[in-house]
Amino acid sequence: MPSQPPLAPHPDRLLPADPAVRDIARRLYGSVRDLPIISPHGHVDPRVLLDDEPFRDPAQLFVTPDHYVTRLMHASGVPLEALGVGRGPLSEGEAREVWRLLCSSWHVYRGTPVRYWLESELAEIFDVTVRPSAETSDAIYDQIAERLAQDEYRPRALFERFKIEVLATTDDPCDDLAPHAALAADPTWSGRVLPTFRPDRYLEAARPDWVGSVGRLGEVSGVGTGTYSGWVEAMEARRRHFVEHGAVSADHAHVDAGTQPLEGGDAERLYAAGLAGTISTEEGAALRRHMLLEMARMSTEDGLTMTIHPGVRRDHHGPTASRFGADVGDDIPLQLEFTDALRPLLERFGTHPKLHVVLFTLDETVFSRELAPLAGFYPSVYIGAPWWFLDAPEAIRRWRSAITDTAGFSRTSGFIDDTRAFCSIPARHDMSRRLDSGFLAQLVAEHRLDEDEAVETVVDLVRGRPKEVFQL
Amino acid sequence: MPSQPPLAPHPDRLLPADPAVRDIARRLYGSVRDLPIISPHGHVDPRVLLDDEPFRDPAQLFVTPDHYVTRLMHASGVPLEALGVGRGPLSEGEAREVWRLLCSSWHVYRGTPVRYWLESELAEIFDVTVRPSAETSDAIYDQIAERLAQDEYRPRALFERFKIEVLATTDDPCDDLAPHAALAADPTWSGRVLPTFRPDRYLEAARPDWVGSVGRLGEVSGVGTGTYSGWVEAMEARRRHFVEHGAVSADHAHVDAGTQPLEGGDAERLYAAGLAGTISTEEGAALRRHMLLEMARMSTEDGLTMTIHPGVRRDHHGPTASRFGADVGDDIPLQLEFTDALRPLLERFGTHPKLHVVLFTLDETVFSRELAPLAGFYPSVYIGAPWWFLDAPEAIRRWRSAITDTAGFSRTSGFIDDTRAFCSIPARHDMSRRLDSGFLAQLVAEHRLDEDEAVETVVDLVRGRPKEVFQL
Amino acid sequence: MPSQPPLAPHPDRLLPADPAVRDIARRLYGSVRDLPIISPHGHVDPRVLLDDEPFRDPAQLFVTPDHYVTRLMHASGVPLEALGVGRGPLSEGEAREVWRLLCSSWHVYRGTPVRYWLESELAEIFDVTVRPSAETSDAIYDQIAERLAQDEYRPRALFERFKIEVLATTDDPCDDLAPHAALAADPTWSGRVLPTFRPDRYLEAARPDWVGSVGRLGEVSGVGTGTYSGWVEAMEARRRHFVEHGAVSADHAHVDAGTQPLEGGDAERLYAAGLAGTISTEEGAALRRHMLLEMARMSTEDGLTMTIHPGVRRDHHGPTASRFGADVGDDIPLQLEFTDALRPLLERFGTHPKLHVVLFTLDETVFSRELAPLAGFYPSVYIGAPWWFLDAPEAIRRWRSAITDTAGFSRTSGFIDDTRAFCSIPARHDMSRRLDSGFLAQLVAEHRLDEDEAVETVVDLVRGRPKEVFQL
Repeated sequence: MPSQPPLAPHPDRLLPADPAVRDIARRLYGSVRDLPIISPHGHVDPRVLLDDEPFRDPAQLFVTPDHYVTRLMHASGVPLEALGVGRGPLSEGEAREVWRLLCSSWHVYRGTPVRYWLESELAEIFDVTVRPSAETSDAIYDQIAERLAQDEYRPRALFERFKIEVLATTDDPCDDLAPHAALAADPTWSGRVLPTFRPDRYLEAARPDWVGSVGRLGEVSGVGTGTYSGWVEAMEARRRHFVEHGAVSADHAHVDAGTQPLEGGDAERLYAAGLAGTISTEEGAALRRHMLLEMARMSTEDGLTMTIHPGVRRDHHGPTASRFGADVGDDIPLQLEFTDALRPLLERFGTHPKLHVVLFTLDETVFSRELAPLAGFYPSVYIGAPWWFLDAPEAIRRWRSAITDTAGFSRTSGFIDDTRAFCSIPARHDMSRRLDSGFLAQLVAEHRLDEDEAVETVVDLVRGRPKEVFQL
Repeated sequence: MPSQPPLAPHPDRLLPADPAVRDIARRLYGSVRDLPIISPHGHVDPRVLLDDEPFRDPAQLFVTPDHYVTRLMHASGVPLEALGVGRGPLSEGEAREVWRLLCSSWHVYRGTPVRYWLESELAEIFDVTVRPSAETSDAIYDQIAERLAQDEYRPRALFERFKIEVLATTDDPCDDLAPHAALAADPTWSGRVLPTFRPDRYLEAARPDWVGSVGRLGEVSGVGTGTYSGWVEAMEARRRHFVEHGAVSADHAHVDAGTQPLEGGDAERLYAAGLAGTISTEEGAALRRHMLLEMARMSTEDGLTMTIHPGVRRDHHGPTASRFGADVGDDIPLQLEFTDALRPLLERFGTHPKLHVVLFTLDETVFSRELAPLAGFYPSVYIGAPWWFLDAPEAIRRWRSAITDTAGFSRTSGFIDDTRAFCSIPARHDMSRRLDSGFLAQLVAEHRLDEDEAVETVVDLVRGRPKEVFQL
Repeated sequence: MPSQPPLAPHPDRLLPADPAVRDIARRLYGSVRDLPIISPHGHVDPRVLLDDEPFRDPAQLFVTPDHYVTRLMHASGVPLEALGVGRGPLSEGEAREVWRLLCSSWHVYRGTPVRYWLESELAEIFDVTVRPSAETSDAIYDQIAERLAQDEYRPRALFERFKIEVLATTDDPCDDLAPHAALAADPTWSGRVLPTFRPDRYLEAARPDWVGSVGRLGEVSGVGTGTYSGWVEAMEARRRHFVEHGAVSADHAHVDAGTQPLEGGDAERLYAAGLAGTISTEEGAALRRHMLLEMARMSTEDGLTMTIHPGVRRDHHGPTASRFGADVGDDIPLQLEFTDALRPLLERFGTHPKLHVVLFTLDETVFSRELAPLAGFYPSVYIGAPWWFLDAPEAIRRWRSAITDTAGFSRTSGFIDDTRAFCSIPARHDMSRRLDSGFLAQLVAEHRLDEDEAVETVVDLVRGRPKEVFQL
């Protein structure tokens, strides 16, 4: 193999280019670089840590399950099937082909955070030193595969190496949380892995699978869900189950952020229509907005921090969804509105001392228009870190620029990785630390903040914010 | 008291960090730093200058009346009541406690313009040299209190020291403007203090207080307001009264920017329904959009510059509004649309030589999409300086970036402080001058503008723009 | 004439100000500066090249026909008529007056791309060395006029000098494309000038001129357009005519991007209502959204790349439109939505290997929220270069910042000048090359991309993207 371009992430990457600003940023970054990771929201499967099986191979670790990675290859003409999506376990030959497709497509990721994360992971976890390409694909595959076979590359060893202090998973309300219980009971394991209550499907009475879902909810909770009041009681019971297993938050992701009370028995009536299969789309939305308000009420009682991730058209490409299911890269953001949508919730509970609401958006227009003004007044409201498509260098900079004027730093959530890609957790948190260091360094360089305060702030963003916001 | 971190605003603060760009910016800023202040829109009470009483104390000067300051403390868990809001005059002990809350919360303002303004005011007006904190709170309180007792810290002395050339207040159409008249007649006073016509409440026929408002309007104007045509005549009379007292503008702040003529007697009909208390919310909005169009017609005749500040959900948190009233920090912005909303107005009067319309927004999405294209075609339309939540370093930079491509500099309003915090006026104008110098310096450094033109432009932004736009 | 400020565009203009970043940018720019121009969408009249007549004079070359130039003077109080708009050919005296108005208004263009383009054109094509002003107006006029009389300033000579490799025009479906045919047949001419199929008016059945338009379509195509199916057939015939004359794309500019199938004979019914003059505005929009879907279906068959330019309120100022017609500067952008609007089209054809759709917007909110996510998943979707009001330095930087995180560089269209100002073509492409070099240099300086990859990327943006996207 002729000489290949190296893969060598620079120690100063993502820090500001101006030499004087970079010097300040280096110092700030140095104060947080090695701090443990708090990950209060994400999608890692707890059984990965419970079972501690070696990861299979580079393709099924980095490519096939990660829609962040597959979508841009799909846009470039590579069918999802060729990337292993929807195909079940891959043979080694198949995995090598998937990996080769990634390496051959390396150029399409230029300038994207996917490229940034993968480079960090390959170089820093697996010691890869050449740039991926068709030519280097096999050698890199072999090197990673060889590492994955070693004990120190098993999930638990990596968890420790990554210095993860807290890791939250995302779980169905009917989940028995047995893996969480088993991990907690395991004397050989000291990591903190928390479940998160994610009840979306139980709030969408116009979904075809809703009747089955609430039926199962009734069974699991032991509370009849034949009426709306039964549903409320069953939800409360499942939340208690989650709290008992360490949960600190409940996560909500509907198409809009609407909250609106139903009155005069309308909730009972629409709930019954949902069970009868006669509820309309509009009525389903009305019931959901009422139920979300009820979820906030429960949070004021059981203290689960409420994270709200609205505004996505899921499964935008029907044929892809039919063939491959959900979460394969064809979800597309929508316009979003918080000011009026959340007003009923905030009028009721916005100053409640026990409520914590974290608001996420894929629509940047709400950054300065709604998020910062809301979080800059309501003690219950925090601005969620940039999410999904916006969890990226340029977007994170725009976010800090847009919200800091009105809400400062203290009203933000701390970094949220929201990932199902276990090995990307350190790279994602590291990216955030670098960018926050750079943003603060710019304030210092423009004499808008003293450096001692900037140091305190960057540490607070890594430690204080997530601990306060998620009540850890 | 052990050694405390200093408070020492840097002479180069807010200028670009790059050394070569900063050098240019310093020269540009030097050409405007000491120019007098023109403040054509704000909320200072004219009686402050008429009576010239000493300001009471630091808390009631800087904290209690200023929702810019109180809202972020409220978000951090400090009740508004603890900040003196809604409590009437504070005793010295209470004022010291309020001041201590501000100083103890100093860190939550990091990165915000509130922090920037307060630092400038404390250091440059009151010679404070230590950073506010729980430890330094009393010493700073004492130092400011001691200054406030001196004659040179009375309002008129500060007005001169601040080099305010023009100061506009904001006034109700029924106001007799006696303070303005008394100031103008005072031989010991030479400052220019102008009233501004702010008729919002008289245009909102669905508001509960509307019937009382138009009744009072009838009494004050001496024109019966029992019919729509009477209302028009009464408004014209009050505008004349304002023009006679030096007013140069009329200010309009409704939830949207809609303008739409009513035809065939609908205005008379809805007006009557408003008086009868039977008008619906939708009808009230329709009548208001018709009335705003009428206001534009009046401006083409009496020459009052029309400033439009739409798109805010006022009193978002009902319980706070019930207890503390309006303007206490819980107003939250909304999405905004100008293109279609203003079309009826602009089709009628958009090229009228006497009309000046200044458009303000809290929704940045209209910067490049609507504001710059409108002001880049219509000779009557000017782009208002960033307002309220957007009157802040990062937002001002985004604003210049977003509008200059299409509208250049000449279609902007000059800086508007819009403040009720008298002592913040110099800091706010200074911030704007620094940021405009920095933006222009960047253009020079990138060889997009010659430096002689940049100097001419930055001076024009401080002098020429407000004089032209507000016809001073 | 006393000494005048020089006009001397700097070799580094628009490159980043930071010296180290600028060095990188210079190298990147050096690799594309002299590459030929591919212009796959614009509005130059092909007869200009066919006839190769000398351009008349500076005013009628640079001012009168170009609404980019006239609108900001109009906003500054110069009537369009005084700029020659709507007045037919100008005498030399009149032209000199128009030119003087431009030169006297030079300051209003500070910071705008119009100023940037004009400076480049004056200096680099016409060797002007003094800054335009009232004083220099006549001398500059004379200098340009003298050049325009020379053979090397005729259109064909400039086409060669500009190194235009491909130039697309924009044409009515009923156009016989005779100028294109004549140019292609001319043995003395080797340039590539392609027509573009622009069928908007034939899709708007509620427009007053629609019946006439489809009637003419029937005549020209030889296919009866008395029924919807006839309309489809006639459209297909005209597209074939365009393909035979070298067309590579069809351009679509409606008020929204909606695509929605009509079913059960509704298309036939609404089409008939359109012919009968009884169609409503809403029905007209419904039929147009169905027809646009049909246009996509045709593109999957004949391979014409589909460009979509929606979201403008045309002729915003009725009185101006009545007097001067369309395209005189009073078009104003609107809010835009792609996610749901395009879903029916993309569900049907979004993964079709022959479909290429390029999406343009004047509403920046869709950059990161919709455009990048759509183009980052659908292989048929490309992100169009910033258009019209956004084809400007600051907007182009915001655009790259907003889309690159999610869509990288490969999903973008390459630069589109979209101009009717022939002499501005090199300046516009050069501006884009400088800005892309600067953006990439920033990535290199922040260690986010290796320089060899940045070079490959900037060349690809100039050559590879337009060739792939427009199938050249």
